[in-house]
Amino acid sequence: MYSFKNDYSEGTHPRILNALMEANMEQMEGYGEDKYSIEAIRLIKERLHREDVDVHFFPGGTQTNLTAISAFLRPHEAAIAANTGHILVHETGAIEATGHKVISIEVKDGKINPSQIKEAMDAHTDEHMVKPKLVYISNPTEIGSIYTKKELEDLSNFCRDNRLFLYVDGARLGSALCSKENDIYLDDLANLVDAFYIGGTKNGALLGEALVICKDSLKEDFRFHIKQKGALLAKGRILGIQFAELFKDNLFFDLATHANSMAELLKEAVVQEGYSFLTDSPSNQIFPILPNSIIEGLQEKYIFYVWQKIDENNSAIRLVTSWATKEEAVKDFIEDLKSLKKI
Amino acid sequence: MYSFKNDYSEGTHPRILNALMEANMEQMEGYGEDKYSIEAIRLIKERLHREDVDVHFFPGGTQTNLTAISAFLRPHEAAIAANTGHILVHETGAIEATGHKVISIEVKDGKINPSQIKEAMDAHTDEHMVKPKLVYISNPTEIGSIYTKKELEDLSNFCRDNRLFLYVDGARLGSALCSKENDIYLDDLANLVDAFYIGGTKNGALLGEALVICKDSLKEDFRFHIKQKGALLAKGRILGIQFAELFKDNLFFDLATHANSMAELLKEAVVQEGYSFLTDSPSNQIFPILPNSIIEGLQEKYIFYVWQKIDENNSAIRLVTSWATKEEAVKDFIEDLKSLKKI
Amino acid sequence: MYSFKNDYSEGTHPRILNALMEANMEQMEGYGEDKYSIEAIRLIKERLHREDVDVHFFPGGTQTNLTAISAFLRPHEAAIAANTGHILVHETGAIEATGHKVISIEVKDGKINPSQIKEAMDAHTDEHMVKPKLVYISNPTEIGSIYTKKELEDLSNFCRDNRLFLYVDGARLGSALCSKENDIYLDDLANLVDAFYIGGTKNGALLGEALVICKDSLKEDFRFHIKQKGALLAKGRILGIQFAELFKDNLFFDLATHANSMAELLKEAVVQEGYSFLTDSPSNQIFPILPNSIIEGLQEKYIFYVWQKIDENNSAIRLVTSWATKEEAVKDFIEDLKSLKKI
Amino acid sequence: MYSFKNDYSEGTHPRILNALMEANMEQMEGYGEDKYSIEAIRLIKERLHREDVDVHFFPGGTQTNLTAISAFLRPHEAAIAANTGHILVHETGAIEATGHKVISIEVKDGKINPSQIKEAMDAHTDEHMVKPKLVYISNPTEIGSIYTKKELEDLSNFCRDNRLFLYVDGARLGSALCSKENDIYLDDLANLVDAFYIGGTKNGALLGEALVICKDSLKEDFRFHIKQKGALLAKGRILGIQFAELFKDNLFFDLATHANSMAELLKEAVVQEGYSFLTDSPSNQIFPILPNSIIEGLQEKYIFYVWQKIDENNSAIRLVTSWATKEEAVKDFIEDLKSLKKI
Repeated sequence: MYSFKNDYSEGTHPRILNALMEANMEQMEGYGEDKYSIEAIRLIKERLHREDVDVHFFPGGTQTNLTAISAFLRPHEAAIAANTGHILVHETGAIEATGHKVISIEVKDGKINPSQIKEAMDAHTDEHMVKPKLVYISNPTEIGSIYTKKELEDLSNFCRDNRLFLYVDGARLGSALCSKENDIYLDDLANLVDAFYIGGTKNGALLGEALVICKDSLKEDFRFHIKQKGALLAKGRILGIQFAELFKDNLFFDLATHANSMAELLKEAVVQEGYSFLTDSPSNQIFPILPNSIIEGLQEKYIFYVWQKIDENNSAIRLVTSWATKEEAVKDFIEDLKSLKKI
Repeated sequence: MYSFKNDYSEGTHPRILNALMEANMEQMEGYGEDKYSIEAIRLIKERLHREDVDVHFFPGGTQTNLTAISAFLRPHEAAIAANTGHILVHETGAIEATGHKVISIEVKDGKINPSQIKEAMDAHTDEHMVKPKLVYISNPTEIGSIYTKKELEDLSNFCRDNRLFLYVDGARLGSALCSKENDIYLDDLANLVDAFYIGGTKNGALLGEALVICKDSLKEDFRFHIKQKGALLAKGRILGIQFAELFKDNLFFDLATHANSMAELLKEAVVQEGYSFLTDSPSNQIFPILPNSIIEGLQEKYIFYVWQKIDENNSAIRLVTSWATKEEAVKDFIEDLKSLKKI
Repeated sequence: MYSFKNDYSEGTHPRILNALMEANMEQMEGYGEDKYSIEAIRLIKERLHREDVDVHFFPGGTQTNLTAISAFLRPHEAAIAANTGHILVHETGAIEATGHKVISIEVKDGKINPSQIKEAMDAHTDEHMVKPKLVYISNPTEIGSIYTKKELEDLSNFCRDNRLFLYVDGARLGSALCSKENDIYLDDLANLVDAFYIGGTKNGALLGEALVICKDSLKEDFRFHIKQKGALLAKGRILGIQFAELFKDNLFFDLATHANSMAELLKEAVVQEGYSFLTDSPSNQIFPILPNSIIEGLQEKYIFYVWQKIDENNSAIRLVTSWATKEEAVKDFIEDLKSLKKI
Repeated sequence: MYSFKNDYSEGTHPRILNALMEANMEQMEGYGEDKYSIEAIRLIKERLHREDVDVHFFPGGTQTNLTAISAFLRPHEAAIAANTGHILVHETGAIEATGHKVISIEVKDGKINPSQIKEAMDAHTDEHMVKPKLVYISNPTEIGSIYTKKELEDLSNFCRDNRLFLYVDGARLGSALCSKENDIYLDDLANLVDAFYIGGTKNGALLGEALVICKDSLKEDFRFHIKQKGALLAKGRILGIQFAELFKDNLFFDLATHANSMAELLKEAVVQEGYSFLTDSPSNQIFPILPNSIIEGLQEKYIFYVWQKIDENNSAIRLVTSWATKEEAVKDFIEDLKSLKKI
C-alpha cells in the first residue's frame, strides 16, 4: 500500500537527518539560543530581505497559531477565518481555549476577500459583540487553492485601513510559493502581512515551523508566550538545525517543487481521463472527483481520504503529495487509474 | 569550554538517531497512531506491569504539565506545589494561563509532605478560595533530592484519603529511579500516583516526554486536550520511535545511570576536597559550595550556573551531568578543582 | 417619547421596592446565605415541585450563562447554539473567554431541533475537533418564538440519548411560560432540561436571575464558580428579597402576563391594519413589518429598534413590552399607527 | 444579637432607596447609558478634579478586579499582591481564571513598599518566568491599615520608573479617605495611580463599585471587557442612581466617617480596658486581642469573627463597623466588654 493520505507520512529529508547527526554531540545553549537557531534565523531574514522581522521556531502548527494569535489579541478581540480555516475546525478549539472567538466566514474556494471581512466587521458593531481584530488566512488554503499577489495586496490594504492584523498560516507555504500559478515571493509576504509561519513539518522537516513577525508592535516579549504555551523546546537546536539546513541553499523550495510536480502529474492524468476536481488546486493537495467503483479499486493499493460524497455514484478524494512522494508511485497510481477506467 | 550547565546540551543518543534513520522513509499514520508509537506504549506498559494505564507522548515538559493539569482540574480547582516547583516558577505561568492557581508550599529540600499539604488545605476552607485538588511533585526535585518509597506512599495515602490527585513531574525521572539511594520502582509510581511523566528530553532523547495516566477517571478524551494545546505532532512517529528505542531494552535506565555516576564522581571529589553542598542530591544535579576564587578559576574552562551566593567568599554552583557527559571531562574538572585549591 | 425599545427601561415593580425597603435595616448574612435568599430558593423549588434541584442567584444573564456553561464543560467541550443565540452573538465572546467554542447552527425561527444538533455532532468526529457537549437554547428565543412541550421533549430525549447537557437561557422565561400558545409548565422545565435560568431583570426585578441546576452531576462546588466569576454579591440579600417577592404568590407570572397582553394588543392592531410580521412571536417581543414612512411617523413619539430592512419601502421594527408597559401608551401607539396609515 | 461581622449586613442608606424609588418608573436607556449613570460619572470626575479619567460601574468588587486586571495585562504578565491581598486569597482564583498569575509578597501590615516589589521583580528575570506588570494594593488593606500619601507617592514613582501599573482595590476606600490618620485626597489617587475603584457596596450602597481608569492607554475598548465578564447590567441605572446620590453632596464621605467614628469608639474602649490589637487599624475594621472568656461572653449578644488564636488564653477578633452601625449598639458592646472584664 502506498499512501497519498498526507504530507507527513515519512520522516525527514536525508540532509536534515544528516545535519542533526553531525551536530549531535556538540554542546550548545538550550531554548533556541544555540548557534544553529541563530544561523537559521539569519538565513530566513536574508531570504526575506528584511533584517527587522523577528523569527521564532515552534514544534508544530497548532501551537504556532495559538501562541501567536493569543499573544497578538486583547481579551475582547476575535480572529476572522474562512469556514474551512484550520483554526476554525481542526484545532480542537485551540484559539477559543486561549479565550478568543473565531468568527467564521462562509467561502467557496477557501479564500477570504475584503468584502467578506467587511461584512463580518459590519455585523460587529458595539461592545455587546467581540471586536474583529485579526484576519487568519492559510496559503495554500485547506482545499489547495492559493492567493494571488493581487488578492494578498487587497487584503493587506484592507486590513491596514481597518486596523486589522493579517496573519498567514503557512503550514504548506512552500507548496504555495512554488506553485506554477504563484506570483507571491517570500519577501512579499513579509511586506504585506503582519505575521506568518513557514511550515517545516509538511515540507520535509522532522518537525518545526518558523513564525515570522513583521509588525513591530507584535514583537515585544514574544518569547514569554512561546514558553508559556509550552513551545520552547529545551533542545531548541533541533528546530534550528533543520531550518538552517532547509534555508542554507534552496532545499526548502526544491522539496516543495517536487511535491507540486508530483501533484501536477496526478492532475494531468485525472484531466486526461476526463474527470473533474472538487476544487481548483495548484498546490500539493488535489481533490479529483471519481466514480465510486474506481475509488474502491484504487483503495486496494493506495491510501487516501475519501473527502466528500458528490452524488450516488461519485465522490471526491484527496490526494496529497510531498517532498518524499516517489515518482514511481505516482506513475503506478496513474496506470491503475487508467486500467480501472477500462473495466 | 566544557558544559555542565544542563542535561540538554547535546543532541540524542546515537541509537535513537539510528532508529529515526532506519524508520525514516517508511510511510506511517500521523498524530501518534503509527506502529512505533503503539509499540512504545506497549513497552512502557509492560515495564510498569500495568495494562490499564494510558500513555501519551508530548514534545516537552511544560506542555505535558499544562495539558495534564488543565485536563484534570475543574475551573475552581488548584494545584499545590513546592515553592521550588517547576510549574510554580519556571514555566511562565503556564498553569495559570489555563485558568488555575498554583498554591505554593514553602519547603527546604524541594519535597512536599502530607502535613504541608494539610496546612494548605486547612487554609482553603470555602468557596471564597480556590479548592486544592492536585498535588504536583517533581522526582527528582528541582534541587536534586529524591523521594523515598515511604514518602511517596505517605503522599499517596494522604491524597487518596483527601480526594486529591497526585501528579509527578518526571522531567529527570530516570535519574531519580537510577539513583543509588532510590527505592522506588517504575511500577510503584503507577500504583501510587494518578499520573506522571517519564522525561525523555533530559535523558537522551532528541525531545519527548511520556505521560502515564493511571487513574481511570482522568483518561477520558485525553487526546482532545493534547490536540487543543498544540502537542499532537503530525509526525507523532518521532516521539514513538524514540521511546520505543529507550524502552526496548535497558537504554533509558543505562543513560540515567551514566549521568548519575558522573555526578557521583564529582560529588566524591567535592567531598574529598573538603567542600559541602547546598542540597542533598543523589541525582544528576549537584550544588557544591565553593570559594568564589575557585569558581572563577573553573569558569575559565567550564560552563555551569552560579546558583546562589552563600556568603562574602563562597557561592553554590550547579553541576548537571547527563547521558552524554564524558568521564574524561569529569576527571579534568576534578583535577582542575584540586589544582585551583592549591593556589 | 414612550419607549418600546426593551423590557428593562424602567426600574422594578413597586412591591419589590417595598420588600427591599422593609428588609432594609435588618442585619443579615452576606453572600446569599440570608433568610430571604433561603426563602426564595424554597419558593422556587416548591413551584417546580422538585426538592432536589439547586438554585443560585446571579446579578445578570451573561454572567449566569458564562458561569454555568464554564462550570459544566471540560476544556475540550463546546456548546451548540442557534445562530441567533444570545451567547453566540451578543455576549462579547463571554463563553469563548472561558475557553469554550460555541458551535453555530443556522436556524430560521430561533429554535433548534434534534436533527440540527445531530448534524453538528456528525461534523465533529474526532479529537481534532471540539466535542459538542451542551445544547444552549433560549425560551422565548431572541426573536420571540417559543418552544412547544413536544419540541422540548424531543430535544430532551435527544440530548439524554447523546450525553449532551440541555441548558435553557430564560432571560424572558416568564413571557414564554405565560404566552397563550405555551404548553410548558415551570416544572416541565426542571424535568426535561439539565439547567435553566429564570430571568428576573426582564420581568420586573431590579436585577437578578435564578439559575436552577437539575442534573445532580452539575451541582458540585457550584458556589466556587459563582464566586470566581465575580457573581457572588456581598449583599446577596437583594437578589433573595426580590425573588422571594416574585414567587411568594403569582407576581412573577402576573407581570409576564401583563407584558404579553400588551404585546397581544399591539399584534392585533398590526394585523388589523393589514401588516405582517418578521417572526411568529407569541411572547413580549414582536417584529411588525411597516412602511418606512409610517415608521418615521411613529419615531416622532416612540422609541423602538428598526430591526431589519425588508425592501426599499418597508422595514421590520421591534416592539418590546414589559411588566411596566402602560396600556394607555399601547393604545396611543395603536391610534398613531392607524392615523399614520391614513395619511 | 447585633452584628459587627461585616459592613454589608444591612441594605442601603435610605437616601439611596429613595433615589431608586423616585426614578423607578422613568424610562431610560439600558447598559449604563442612562442619565443617572452619566450624572454619576460627571460628579465623580468633578470630585477628582480630572475630566480625563474614565469611570465605569460594576456590581461587585471581585468582578471589578478581574475585569480590570485581565483587561490591563497581556497573557504573560502577572499581578503582584500582598499575601493578605483580596485577589490572592479571597476571590477563588478569579485572576488566575483569566490566565494571570498573582505573585505573593509576604508583608506584615498588609501594605506593600517599593523594595518588596523590587525583590519580586528581581526574582523574575527572563521569559521562563511571568513578567510582573501590575501592582495591586488595597486601601485600606484587608487588615485595616491605610497608606500614607508619602507611601503612595513612593509606590507611584517606583511603578512609573519600572513600567508597572499601580491599581488600588478600594472596596473600603471611603473608610481610608475619611480616617483621622489619612492624608490622601481622592484626587491624589487619580494622580498617583493608574486605576482604582471606589467601593459602594461596603459604604452604604445596595451594590456597586466605581472603577476609575486614569492612565490613557488602559481605557481603550473597556466596555467590551465589562460586557464580556458579565458586568454590564441591563438596568445599569441602578448603579448610576446610587453613585449619583452618594456623590451629589457629601453622602459618601459622611457614611464612611460615621463607620470610622464607630470603630474609633470601640478602639478607645478596648484601649481603656487595657487590651491591645493584632493590627494597627485607623479604619472601620479593628482586631482587638481579648481573653477567650470575654470573647465567649460577647458572643452571646454579638456576632463577629474570631480572627486568630494568639495563645492558649487569648484570641484576636474582628469588629467591623459601617454606615449603618448604631451608636447605641456600640455603647452596649462597650458596656458588655467592661462588665465581662469584672467577672
